[in-house]
Formats: sequence, C-alpha cells, structure tokens
Amino acid sequence: MTTEKIRLIPLGGLGEVGKNMMVVEYGDDIIIIDAGVMFPDDEMFGVDLVIPDTSYLADKKHRIRGILITHGHEDHVGGLPYILPMLDFPPIYATRLTQGLINVKLKEHRMLEKVAVNVITPGDQIELGENCIEFFRVNHSIPDAVGIVIRTPVGTVVHTGDYKFDYTPIDGKPADFATLGRIGNEGVLVMMGDSTRVESPGYTPSERVINDSLDKIFAEAPGRIMLATFASLISRVQQVADVAANYERFIALVGRSMINNVQMAIELGYLHIPQGMLIRAEDINKFRPEQVVIICTGSQGEPTSALTRIANRDHRLVRIQPGDTVILSATPVPGNEKMVHRTINSLFRQGAEVFYQGLSNVHVSGHAAQEELKLMLSLLRPRFFVPVHGEYRQLVLHAKLASSMGLPGEHIIIAEDGDTIEVSADEIRLAEHTATGNVFVDGLSVGDVGQIVLRDRKVLSQDGILMAVLTIDKETGQPLAGPDIISRGFVYMRDAEELLESARERVLESFVGLSGQGSDWSFVKDKIKHTLSEFLYEKTHRRPMVLPVVMEV
Amino acid sequence: MTTEKIRLIPLGGLGEVGKNMMVVEYGDDIIIIDAGVMFPDDEMFGVDLVIPDTSYLADKKHRIRGILITHGHEDHVGGLPYILPMLDFPPIYATRLTQGLINVKLKEHRMLEKVAVNVITPGDQIELGENCIEFFRVNHSIPDAVGIVIRTPVGTVVHTGDYKFDYTPIDGKPADFATLGRIGNEGVLVMMGDSTRVESPGYTPSERVINDSLDKIFAEAPGRIMLATFASLISRVQQVADVAANYERFIALVGRSMINNVQMAIELGYLHIPQGMLIRAEDINKFRPEQVVIICTGSQGEPTSALTRIANRDHRLVRIQPGDTVILSATPVPGNEKMVHRTINSLFRQGAEVFYQGLSNVHVSGHAAQEELKLMLSLLRPRFFVPVHGEYRQLVLHAKLASSMGLPGEHIIIAEDGDTIEVSADEIRLAEHTATGNVFVDGLSVGDVGQIVLRDRKVLSQDGILMAVLTIDKETGQPLAGPDIISRGFVYMRDAEELLESARERVLESFVGLSGQGSDWSFVKDKIKHTLSEFLYEKTHRRPMVLPVVMEV
Repeated sequence: MTTEKIRLIPLGGLGEVGKNMMVVEYGDDIIIIDAGVMFPDDEMFGVDLVIPDTSYLADKKHRIRGILITHGHEDHVGGLPYILPMLDFPPIYATRLTQGLINVKLKEHRMLEKVAVNVITPGDQIELGENCIEFFRVNHSIPDAVGIVIRTPVGTVVHTGDYKFDYTPIDGKPADFATLGRIGNEGVLVMMGDSTRVESPGYTPSERVINDSLDKIFAEAPGRIMLATFASLISRVQQVADVAANYERFIALVGRSMINNVQMAIELGYLHIPQGMLIRAEDINKFRPEQVVIICTGSQGEPTSALTRIANRDHRLVRIQPGDTVILSATPVPGNEKMVHRTINSLFRQGAEVFYQGLSNVHVSGHAAQEELKLMLSLLRPRFFVPVHGEYRQLVLHAKLASSMGLPGEHIIIAEDGDTIEVSADEIRLAEHTATGNVFVDGLSVGDVGQIVLRDRKVLSQDGILMAVLTIDKETGQPLAGPDIISRGFVYMRDAEELLESARERVLESFVGLSGQGSDWSFVKDKIKHTLSEFLYEKTHRRPMVLPVVMEV
Repeated sequence: MTTEKIRLIPLGGLGEVGKNMMVVEYGDDIIIIDAGVMFPDDEMFGVDLVIPDTSYLADKKHRIRGILITHGHEDHVGGLPYILPMLDFPPIYATRLTQGLINVKLKEHRMLEKVAVNVITPGDQIELGENCIEFFRVNHSIPDAVGIVIRTPVGTVVHTGDYKFDYTPIDGKPADFATLGRIGNEGVLVMMGDSTRVESPGYTPSERVINDSLDKIFAEAPGRIMLATFASLISRVQQVADVAANYERFIALVGRSMINNVQMAIELGYLHIPQGMLIRAEDINKFRPEQVVIICTGSQGEPTSALTRIANRDHRLVRIQPGDTVILSATPVPGNEKMVHRTINSLFRQGAEVFYQGLSNVHVSGHAAQEELKLMLSLLRPRFFVPVHGEYRQLVLHAKLASSMGLPGEHIIIAEDGDTIEVSADEIRLAEHTATGNVFVDGLSVGDVGQIVLRDRKVLSQDGILMAVLTIDKETGQPLAGPDIISRGFVYMRDAEELLESARERVLESFVGLSGQGSDWSFVKDKIKHTLSEFLYEKTHRRPMVLPVVMEV
C-alpha cells in the first residue's frame, strides 16, 4: 500500500495578517496560491515592504506548475514583482480583474513581457501536472475573487481565499452556493479557510448597506465630497459613482494607484462610469463645489498618500475649503489607527465635515464572520481542516469553531508559516519545519536588511549614537588628535557640553600607560566602549550606541 | 462697569488623549486641575513619558493656590513627580484613594515629605484665594473620582473630570444626581466636559456587567486563572476578588504597581479582600491550579510588564501551563493594539485559553457615551461650554452634540493645548495662545530631548548612519589615514563591501587638488556629505545620516 501524500507549506499568512502565500505539493508538482506583501510593523524600522521568504522553493523552481491568485489585493498579489524573478517567472492564473491589477503592477516593475498571466473564469478547470484545478466565485471586498479547488490523486484540496457571503453584492454576482454544494458532495479531503474575522459573531453585512449611508451624506453635503478608500476597492468606487450620478456630481480621481486601477477597471468593464462624468483633478475648480466628488487614496493615513497630503495642506491640487465633506471609507488596518486619527483631526481642524468608520456606516469588512465561517464549513464538509489567514489567536479560534461543529480535534491542524502539513487519505499531521521568515524590501534591495541592521536601527531610534574618534601615533600609542565626541539623537549637544567633556576625559584615561606598537587596539576600543557606556548610563539612564573609532598614523 | 474675566488655559489633554492639565485663573489666583502624563507615540522615539509644558506658569508660581486632582489615573496624576518641583511644590487636593495613589508615586520619587496632599471628600468645600471649591462624586473606572466646581466672583466654573453615569457601580456609590441638579440650579457659567467617548452612541454599560462574564469564565476554567488589568483599576480587582471568593480561589498579585496599589487600597479600606485569601506569588505552586487566581499588570502589552513577561516565558515566577485561563480585562489604548495582540498570540501559542475584549465582555469603558454626555449637559445647563479630554475630532463632535441640544454656537469654544479662553459673565472667547507642547521624560532627564534629537532618532531609525572618518595632514591637506567608512543600521557591512569601497573612493576624490593650510574643512565636509548622500541614494534608494569626521594632525 502506498501512502501518497499532499504537502501544504504556508510561506506567509499563517500566524500573521498579510503576505499570504501557500505552497501545495503533490508528487513532483508544486502549485502556489497567492504571493502577497505585508506592511512593516513598528519594529521593522525603515523597511518599505515585507514579502514571504521563498528560500524553500529555491531548489524546486523546475517543479512549480503555476501561481494561482485568489484576488487582486496587495496581501495576495503585492509580492509578485519581487518573487517572480526568484522563481524564474512561473505562469500565473487569475481572473480578469485580478489580471488587470497584476499587470498594472508588473508594468511599474518593467516585467510585463517576462510573465504569462493567464486569465481564468470561475468555473474553469485547468490541468497543472497531475492535478486538476477548478476556480469558484466568492464574495470579497473586491470583484472577481475566487476560491480554489485542487484535485490531486490523493484527494481534493480546497482553499477558500478571502471571502464572505454577500447575498446582494455590488457586482450582482452572489456566492455560488450550487458549486460549493457540488464540491462538498464530491468530497473534500482538506480545506484551508480564511480566519481573518473569526473574532466577530454573526454575519458580515452586505456591501450594499453602504449605499444608504452614502446617499444620506450626499443628500446633505453642502459642498465638495471627498471619499478615500483602497485603490483596489473597485466595487466601492462603483457605489460612489452610482450615488454621484443620482446627485449630478462629477468625479475626479486623485492618487496614482487610484487613477491607474480605475482606468484599468473601466477598460475591462468592471466599473461603469458614464462618459463625461469623470473630470480631471486639475479641473475641479471649474465646477461648483456641490458638483464635485473626489475619490482618492489615503484611507489608511499613509504619509505620502493623497488624503494625507490634502489634510496636511501640501497637496498640489486639492486644499480643504469650508463646506467640504470627507468620507474615510475603510477601517484602519491594525497599527494604522494613529495615522488615520491624525488625518481625521487635521481635516476637522481645517473645517471639513468628516465621516469615518465607527461614526457612520461607510465601510464593511470583506471577510466572513463566525456564522459565515460555519456556513462554508457546512457546505464543503472537509475531512481535514487548516485555518489560514490570521494571527495565531485567530487560527486557534477558527479551529475551535470547526471543532464545535463536530470536526474531530485530530482532523484540524493549527500551523504557522514554514510548517509542513502532510495530508494522506486518512491522516493529517505536522511534519518538519522549513526555514521561513520575513524578507524585507528597503529601497532598491530585497533581503539585504536583516536582523543585525534592524537591531542597530532599533538601538539608534531609542537613544541615538555617540562616537569617540581619535588619531593615534602608532609609535607612542598616544593620541595625536581627538578624542572628538560626536553624538546624534542622544542629547542636544549644545546643552550637554559638560557631559560630553567628561566623556572625552574618560576616553583619554583609557590611554594612560599604553605604549604603541605592542598595543591591542581592539582591546582599547572595547575598553573605551565599555567605560563610556557605563558612564553615560549612570549620568543619563540612556543607552546610546557607543562607537569608538581609532585611526593610526 | 468692570468686565472681570476668568481665564482657562489648557496645558494638556485638549487636542490629544492624555497628560490632562487645566489652568483656571481668576484675578491673582491660579488653580490647576490635574497633572497627567501621556505615553509617547510612535514618532517620539526612545521617549519614556510625555508631560505638559508648564513654562506658562514659570513666572506665576507664587499665584498657584493648589492643584486639584479629579482621580488617580496616570493621565491625571502621573505628571506630578516631574511638575511639582518646577512649580515649587504647591499643595494638592484629592480624595482619599487618589491621595493614596499619589503617595505611592511620590514615595518612588522620594518627594513624599516635600508635598502637602490634602484629603477631601465629595461634598467638601474649600477656599482657595477668592474662590470657593466644591467637589462632587462622579463614576469612572476607578473609585473616588470627582468633578470640580470653582465658584469665582465672576461665576461658576465646572470641570467634570473623567466620568460616566453608572447606576450600579462596584463601590456602591452612584453618581450624585441631587448635587449635580443643585449645581445646575445655582447656575453654571462655564462647563468643561470629558469628550473621550463622544464617538460612541447610547450609554456606556455599568461596570457590573463584567461580573457575569467573570462568573462564567471562573465556572468553566479548569486550572489557574490570570487576569491582567490596569494597576489603578481598584474596582476591577474588587470584582475579581468577589468572584474568586465564590469559587474558593486564592489571589496572588504579580507586578510591582499592582502590589503597591492593592496594598494601599486595602489599607485605606477601598478594597475588601478577606484575610488569608491573598497569597504570595512565590507560593502559587503550593496550591492546586484550580485554587489560584493571579491578578497582574500588562493588559496593554507593555514590554516589561508582568503579563508580557509571562507570555514571553521570561517571568521569574509564573509560566503558562496547560489548563491556564488568561483574561485581559482592559481595552488596548490606541497605538497599543499590536503589542496586545502579540501578547494574546503568545499566550494561545503556549496553550492557554485567552479571553479578551471583543471576544468576551471583560471590560467596559470608564467614559460617558453620547446619551450620558447629554445627561450631564442637561443637569448642569451651562451658559458656556468647553469640550475637554480628547483629540480634535472628539472635541468637535462634543461641541456639535452640545449645539444640537440648543446651546448657541458662540457659547461653545473648541480649544487646544496652549489656547487661552477668556470667560466673562456674558461672553466666551479665544484670546492669545501661550507656548505649549510636549515635554519629554527620557531616562533621568526631563525636557532635554527636543525636536532636534527626535528628528535625528527618526532619521537613524529609518536608514541608519554612515560615517566617513579621516585624518588629514594639515600641511598638505591630504589624507594621512582613512577614510574609514563605518555604518550602522544602513546595510549589512559584510554584504556591502563593494558599495562601501566605492563610497571610500568618492570621499578621496573630494581631496583632489586641496592644499592644506588654505583649505576650508567645513566646506570639504559639506562636499563629502553631499557627494556621499547622492551616491548612496542612487545605489540603494536609502537616505542614511551621513557624517564626515575630519581630524587634523
């Protein structure tokens, strides 16, 4: 008897929110689901983006049959421009809108002609190696999102992607219950399910509830309306356009990614805005305030985004004026709350009326709440279950939820990035752990900022740096010039002359009795470093990075 | 006709959350309400605490009649140890529990004997200069909280402090409606009201609702229970003690501030824990798991707190074991969400069952929601209104709420820290703005970390630092040693040898054609700095701090 196995190796998105990437292996075939980015947290100083560590795949590139993309959000496609070159550009499979969003990105990175992005439609079946792939429609806060079925000789693997059940979605395409039921009836060996919103009881409201809120705000707004949302939230843009049409307002787009995505979505037929309704941001002042809606980026308070610039009065074209109404149609991603609040405060300070989540129903989540998670589990009835997309607590809660529905504990695996999950026809288990972690994009380079650089940045950010620089006579071992004491981010040097003078003296004392040739400079440097660190801590209770620099002449 | 005036000068808490401090001036008298701290936000690198800037008071110390404290939370009393010495230790007035909490703090800072902390009781009236002060009881998430009435010859000033209306508070002392009604009937010239929770509709639930949640968790917990909350949340500790008594569990306290505060509250009679029910943390292993409750600090995920250490497996006495139940009985303060989530994830990872806000009713706010704010305005019926305690958007929303109740717009002032509000019998208006801002406590010193140091820390945190160090022959103007290129937090030096070697060459090129004596070293340093910055940005798209150091011998 052979015990054939499927191996699932999450490279991102399990034990964290973001940079989703799942490797599915059967035999010689490797199929990848999604390749997202994550935004750096407050410990990742100076890092621009975080992508999955794909070193596990480095010696297996020839086995990769394709990358399947569930939808066009950054945490699912944003890693592609960095990861594709590392994997020798395997083919991508995505729905039409998702392909459009990917292409915008590939174009920016000048790799459009290097990659084959194949367009699939929900219901399509394709062969990848020994596996048959099927895509099924799900609802999410972006149109054209899909879940994925991978039929292997061992059994069927289902990945839900990000989803919720929306009976009245903006694009008119509700979740495909018939297909989900069929897939469940055919038998699912292992299901991977989105855990993002497992902490919320009940059902996530339909996108449609936002229409009423928007209508009310539009009915009462005396002047211009500005609405900020994610550039990829195409369905939200459609909602705003529909309400704007009712109130005879023109639409101006502000923010590069908003302009690019909207243009692409119009071209592909995913966004319907009547000819003549779109105006250029340069022209907004040619219209009366009550004729204008501005749709812009910046709903997360990102420092260089359109709305943040507007709030800070440094946007090239748009400035807040009396009568303006601003809508933040998004929830702050955890960690962004302060930046979002700063933006809202600035807008209020300049006299705008501001509507935001919590105060008004101007955003709904794109993820399934508890009752929907149960519905998905009930439709697919998997033999084994792996919660995905969530921090550890969310994975645990999703596992408990599945367990409460009768799935035996040994049929559920809580795994994190880098764990290997082995699934056979009658067992699921954790196998070895592969090397994973965060790969940092900082400026032009990918992966060269590691723990040492980050640790230094952290120390520097806390208490700054103090350098003691000397030139030494290599004959006598005694200082010829210096020590110069230079500090940055430690104390305000003009206020601390006495302290720095004492530090100078401590350094000089380290040379008493030294006699040149025989001296071990690294020993002297260590001594200076130690003495100064102690001295500075005693005087200030701060621990700047201390850096002795000794030059011999 | 004299137009006598009251002046209100907020030094903290208006336009921000935290470091509350309000100056009330009439004639020669200055009365201060509260002196809090604020926790540094993510832009205040390395700062330990933020206190109000009291430079406005520097030349008016002799006019200060006293500091009135509304309650014992850090954002109302935490600034005292730093501010008292600056103001020549004026007398403090506070309720008994608040005095106890202040004394714990003054003792730590060795200034207990320098300060008179006078105990007052709700209903007390005291004379300060020409003014008569009355204190009235309010409900908040700490016992013994008061609002303040200042009767000046011009009219009555009321400051609500932080408050909510709790009809069934844990300490059995509901809000004093009779007194509030009387104060309102006597006539209130200007009211300052807490705006913290103005974004929430309806009523804030009673502290009592937590009892049911705790009871349910205690009934089902198979092993030890750990509950983390604010060390000052004495009423929460009482609730836990009451439930623990029902389930015959002993209580161990973990965390220095928790131990100190609980001990003090027991001594003052604000906390009733039966003799013998408290055990030492060192002894928990002498009891069976189901006999133990641990009450600890760390509900905000603070890095050095008890719960964070426990979650990270580096607490001296407590380690998570199977069967443990952990309750986080607090809401993350904005900005702390990531730290709190990290703690929760770690606890789950070690197998604990974790209950936290959002998942379970284990915390309620201490601040009034919209309907309670209306109730307070209706009871006091002030002529003029100044929203306090909140970020700008919250002050605006509170002003709108008052306006919606019929208060004329010109009777409401939205002010921020440092604004001067002048109130006469028939007018309220903004007068001049005084210098205010944040004063940073960093290590041992107060106020020496300013914008320059912070800006440097920010630059260092983003892209690190690169130094070019040379020794120059002052005769020839040519390098004798170096340039040594040293970087920290910029690139991993071992990976970047080529880049750093090129940087070295750029520095050397700056000396071509220079000839000693006549050379202007600051010009050369500027040139090196500029050349290197450009070069490094071109190669890496990063902007490290570039620091040329030139020594002459």
